[in-house]
Amino acid sequence: MSHVTQPGQFITLEGTEGAGKSTNLMFIEQWLRDRDIDVVVTREPGGTAIGEAVRHILLDKQYGEMTPDTELLLMFAARNQHLQEKILPALAAGQWVISDRFTDATYAYQGGARGLPFKRIAEIEQWVQKGRFPDRTFVFDLPIEEGMKRVAARAELSGQHIDRFEQEKIDFFEKVRATYLIRAEEAPERYTVLDAQQPLEAVQAQLQAALMSMVSESANL
Amino acid sequence: MSHVTQPGQFITLEGTEGAGKSTNLMFIEQWLRDRDIDVVVTREPGGTAIGEAVRHILLDKQYGEMTPDTELLLMFAARNQHLQEKILPALAAGQWVISDRFTDATYAYQGGARGLPFKRIAEIEQWVQKGRFPDRTFVFDLPIEEGMKRVAARAELSGQHIDRFEQEKIDFFEKVRATYLIRAEEAPERYTVLDAQQPLEAVQAQLQAALMSMVSESANL
Repeated sequence: MSHVTQPGQFITLEGTEGAGKSTNLMFIEQWLRDRDIDVVVTREPGGTAIGEAVRHILLDKQYGEMTPDTELLLMFAARNQHLQEKILPALAAGQWVISDRFTDATYAYQGGARGLPFKRIAEIEQWVQKGRFPDRTFVFDLPIEEGMKRVAARAELSGQHIDRFEQEKIDFFEKVRATYLIRAEEAPERYTVLDAQQPLEAVQAQLQAALMSMVSESANL
Repeated sequence: MSHVTQPGQFITLEGTEGAGKSTNLMFIEQWLRDRDIDVVVTREPGGTAIGEAVRHILLDKQYGEMTPDTELLLMFAARNQHLQEKILPALAAGQWVISDRFTDATYAYQGGARGLPFKRIAEIEQWVQKGRFPDRTFVFDLPIEEGMKRVAARAELSGQHIDRFEQEKIDFFEKVRATYLIRAEEAPERYTVLDAQQPLEAVQAQLQAALMSMVSESANL
């Protein structure tokens, strides 16, 4: 047995609203814990005290005047803190990190949907991440109208208010979805796209297969 | 008489704590108003609703874990919003803008004092400002110990708490001061350094001379 701690794996979950990220995040977490893997669950924007304070600004509907570049800089400010304070130390200590959204969301929302050039995002990504990407990204894919119905039903149940992003129109989310799918197609070794219209059991069988191969690869490193 | 609105001038005030920025900002504002110049007074970090929310995070002492890069990204997020929402529209409408701090403060605090490479700051500056710099920057210069005495006296009077930056040590502010002086020396056409140890009348006579030349140059454009 080696005395060197094996670095953990970095998993991110992406998708449009209502596609089942939260439910499946809990499934992944439990699946890994059942195998005695030490897991850190986190989210973006947020994940640290500073990041959550920035998230509060980003989601607040009163800030309708926020420009796309301001949004981008705030996202990466929160992300930098998240990486340095939480994600990288956890991975170095051998923990697995599952983040509800990461930089793919920036490409999808600020790039694809708000229209910021991908090149601009890639520059600041390189600046902050220095080549560190997630090891595996699960994209939960669902037609936008279906996701919106699910979100509306959930909001009605919980009495939750929609945030600055959720108030966007269908066209906006179509662009978000399309960007995720294009990115996944361009780097299939990192992405697993899951059709969220399937029954939950089918989605989770697929997740489980992907996780099993991650665990066995990681054990063989 | 031309029907084209003449763009306003962009003035920034810089310096370490206690060097008299606030007092002299009011002097400059009044001096310009007395000459029927429409003036917008603002500050950084802040100046907009979003910027002030970011300022709140930046100054809060509870966030001692903030990394220099996070600080830099938050500063430029606030600055981008400030430029796009307030400074550039005001200048385009012919108003003069006076800002209590701007990007020179980022070079001085995050660069000189926190040690971030100037090149990194210059990249993000270009990214956000696209070559737009202040027309005139007044640097209020004062030995650090003298400024600290003034701040301590003021804090005692007002019962104000010190913020995340103000709690730094003398050595930190010496680096801030040195960076301001080096930058001013490198571009004398933009900077006016004012010795804040002089009597206020002497400082303001110098300010007045600089403002007179700005007004007359601006009238001749």
